[in-house]
Amino acid sequence: MARRKKVYEGKAKILFEGPEPGTLVQYFKDDEQATTVSPISAAVEGKGVLNNRLSEFFMSGLNAIGVPTHFIRRLNMREQLVRMAEIIPLEVVVRNFAAGDISQRLGIPEGTPLPRPIVEYYFKDDKLGTPLVAEEHIIAFGWANQQDLDDMIALALRVNDFLSGVMLGVGVRLADFRIEVGRVWEGDFMRLIVADEISPDSMRLWDMRLTERADGTQADPGPLTDVHTELARRLGVLPSNVTHPAKPSLIN
Amino acid sequence: MARRKKVYEGKAKILFEGPEPGTLVQYFKDDEQATTVSPISAAVEGKGVLNNRLSEFFMSGLNAIGVPTHFIRRLNMREQLVRMAEIIPLEVVVRNFAAGDISQRLGIPEGTPLPRPIVEYYFKDDKLGTPLVAEEHIIAFGWANQQDLDDMIALALRVNDFLSGVMLGVGVRLADFRIEVGRVWEGDFMRLIVADEISPDSMRLWDMRLTERADGTQADPGPLTDVHTELARRLGVLPSNVTHPAKPSLIN
Repeated sequence: MARRKKVYEGKAKILFEGPEPGTLVQYFKDDEQATTVSPISAAVEGKGVLNNRLSEFFMSGLNAIGVPTHFIRRLNMREQLVRMAEIIPLEVVVRNFAAGDISQRLGIPEGTPLPRPIVEYYFKDDKLGTPLVAEEHIIAFGWANQQDLDDMIALALRVNDFLSGVMLGVGVRLADFRIEVGRVWEGDFMRLIVADEISPDSMRLWDMRLTERADGTQADPGPLTDVHTELARRLGVLPSNVTHPAKPSLIN
Repeated sequence: MARRKKVYEGKAKILFEGPEPGTLVQYFKDDEQATTVSPISAAVEGKGVLNNRLSEFFMSGLNAIGVPTHFIRRLNMREQLVRMAEIIPLEVVVRNFAAGDISQRLGIPEGTPLPRPIVEYYFKDDKLGTPLVAEEHIIAFGWANQQDLDDMIALALRVNDFLSGVMLGVGVRLADFRIEVGRVWEGDFMRLIVADEISPDSMRLWDMRLTERADGTQADPGPLTDVHTELARRLGVLPSNVTHPAKPSLIN
């Protein structure tokens, strides 16, 4: 695969032209991406390898229950083949518990369960700090139309149902996550699919297994420590060829 | 009207119990209120007198075209009789041109015409800085329901149509404005009405009459100077009993 044409390089991934039209190769780097949900900027060794595996795990699971994603198949340790999609310039965030941005903006203590899952949109623009936007802005500026938004909410809530279930199964609370959504055309028919990645970099995960203190009282769930390795371990997707998968090496 | 019971005191107004059930007396102070739209904090002498007149002018105009407001009648220089309403804790902002918050958050230069009027909601909480919220937040936290929101948008757009027309008639561009909306019950029937005030304190106004420079070129519209007096003068609602209605006296 030498001399492939680079289509895009972001903080955590590189996209190359794929082997056939309408496909891309998505390469996972080790740089942790700065996200709305977890604005950490550090590199974790082997993180790209784990995120490639984890995103494969979540996306192929979603494909199997009929939630369309861009994932086709994993190619190797760091790469997966995906469908090319026209990315809608929004981060779609689903929140089950208050944390981060919503806690600060609306004064809700971290950890508070929300009355129901709340779907938020953030405009993908790093320079502007990925600002929260409402449907009114999205439609007025033509980033998506009302039908897209209805479809995106339905898609995001299905992803939430699935991911919440997966996490509950391994003792993890899904506080919030974000997805990106893209448009693909099938003949004259346009549909929306989940794109980008689904990994610990795009989710806020709290450990439910540590909720009991030594004295027997309940503690608040804390962040899942060593999240990439621990989640991969609990889900049984640790790649056998990564012996020290997530030795942390902070670079800034 | 001595010894009336004070119901509420804000930065710009005091509400007293009204003469009959379901009514309030709204007293206009001179303190300029800090708003999302114009976060100025200064007192202008006679401003309360002018805002009482201007709010009467706009609200009675809206009542006349069938847009329901809380305004019943003006009582004296600083007071008007209004219907008591259960205020929805949102500032409903309609923007025709980019300015202020939307310019900063979305990187749109001030003065840019928006593709269409955009209706925004801000959560009324001074401590949190009146943060922008989306319909999702409003519904999830029970501040209003979907029917309320649909009614509020319709109400806000009708107010925009009317106010834009009034302003165009006197050479003023209505860049944006905010209203507050309240619930009133008529028997078993609940309806939404425009509450609070409609005045220069709740609008961003640009002067279209100053758009030509001395050299004949077009200048960008600037803010309307001495806005309370100038608007009252142009609209012909200057109270005759205020001789120096808006001698500015900045207090901070």
